[in-house]
Amino acid sequence: MNRPAAYIFDLDGVVYHGNKVISGSGKTIEYIRASGSRVIFMTNNATLSRDSIALKLNDMDICCSAGDVISSAYAASVHIKEHYGPSTIFPIGGQGLVFELEEAGHTIAKQDVDFVVVGLDREFTYQKLTLGLDNIINGAKFIATNTDAMLPVENGFLPGAGSMVSALKTASGIEPEVIGKPHKPIMDVLLSKYSLKSEDCIMVGDRLETDILAGLTLGMHTILVLTGASGIKDIESSGIRPGCVMNSIADIISQVNS
Amino acid sequence: MNRPAAYIFDLDGVVYHGNKVISGSGKTIEYIRASGSRVIFMTNNATLSRDSIALKLNDMDICCSAGDVISSAYAASVHIKEHYGPSTIFPIGGQGLVFELEEAGHTIAKQDVDFVVVGLDREFTYQKLTLGLDNIINGAKFIATNTDAMLPVENGFLPGAGSMVSALKTASGIEPEVIGKPHKPIMDVLLSKYSLKSEDCIMVGDRLETDILAGLTLGMHTILVLTGASGIKDIESSGIRPGCVMNSIADIISQVNS
Repeated sequence: MNRPAAYIFDLDGVVYHGNKVISGSGKTIEYIRASGSRVIFMTNNATLSRDSIALKLNDMDICCSAGDVISSAYAASVHIKEHYGPSTIFPIGGQGLVFELEEAGHTIAKQDVDFVVVGLDREFTYQKLTLGLDNIINGAKFIATNTDAMLPVENGFLPGAGSMVSALKTASGIEPEVIGKPHKPIMDVLLSKYSLKSEDCIMVGDRLETDILAGLTLGMHTILVLTGASGIKDIESSGIRPGCVMNSIADIISQVNS
Repeated sequence: MNRPAAYIFDLDGVVYHGNKVISGSGKTIEYIRASGSRVIFMTNNATLSRDSIALKLNDMDICCSAGDVISSAYAASVHIKEHYGPSTIFPIGGQGLVFELEEAGHTIAKQDVDFVVVGLDREFTYQKLTLGLDNIINGAKFIATNTDAMLPVENGFLPGAGSMVSALKTASGIEPEVIGKPHKPIMDVLLSKYSLKSEDCIMVGDRLETDILAGLTLGMHTILVLTGASGIKDIESSGIRPGCVMNSIADIISQVNS
């Protein structure tokens, strides 16, 4: 391919593990930018605002701004704004979700809302579930930032947004519209925000069923890195075939140079 | 049929609605007992102990003791005791579940448990979900008291046990063993506790997919009453055919007399 217009990097398992940068991330990103391609960070994580994510990356000596980051919380906020206009929303999620929704011009409320938007919420309670159900029964649309089942952390695993989404899906009997990878809304926000054509992009991720599937569905070039969730064996069992497999983000340098 | 050995009554939607007795319940139950059949109350509700349920029924002038009640919390406690012996259990559920588990001789703990037992928990939190996931990842068996999606209450609906079960199922990727109707464990506990043969029982319920399906699966006689969840139209769409349909519990008197 010609020089790609943009490399889209997933974050956890690709650029860093939790709070620890993956060796070679900074250098690779500099190389890519020096070669003339844009670098965009794209995460299903809806708990942090784009500002907080950019801050975290800068702390790891990866230079970027909030404008280089697409999170599922941001994508949900933009998606709702573009398709329905400024709306009243009951969020089940962290501060990052609330921040992005307000930043996009939406109003946060507990009752009589247009949307219930569900992401990972470490302060999830039965009361929030009940409010979410009540709003959906009364006609609110049900949006999930993502459906990731669990989240690897230093000492094990935490339940992901998908588990909260399942609780509300079961209670209400309603299927949510899902924003995050591998679903279309987050990809539409990406392509539209940066005026990209998908065939000019390279999607780099550690999860076949989210990152790689999202890229393949849109006809992007895809690179699976083996520093995260999916291994070589998963390729066969999943039936999802990345264009390229690399040990880590650091191996991209040889490709950019070639 | 000959005189049935026992009538098995579901509670909410059959004997009462929330805290309001359904007209004719007390009289019907007296008639059935006078005719020589036993009356047993069987509920998927795992939030109350059998004592509390019996108290509630007595307050409605329906005479009974805890020994006449099978709840999914009680059935879970007995099922685990009979199949695995006294166990260490992390319960996600209300006081009734904790009471029944302890009453059966199990030990309640938060970590290093043999079982995670999930029912409706009005104090459900992300922390409990995380503890449940952690225990399941570390080898604890996953048991659901029931999978009822929601619960009708006076002013609308509350999320049911099924929504909490779904959250943990999604996070862990593990299917639970389900105790409550229409699943077999609660029916096994019923038949064994009262030394009943299923063909001698009449199952009376308001839900096709729990009460009636449970009865039909075991070859019981079944009566759908129309005072609760399922209506006549649901029979066709569900494909579950009750032996008999009655407007309410009161109509059973004519059958007992005939």
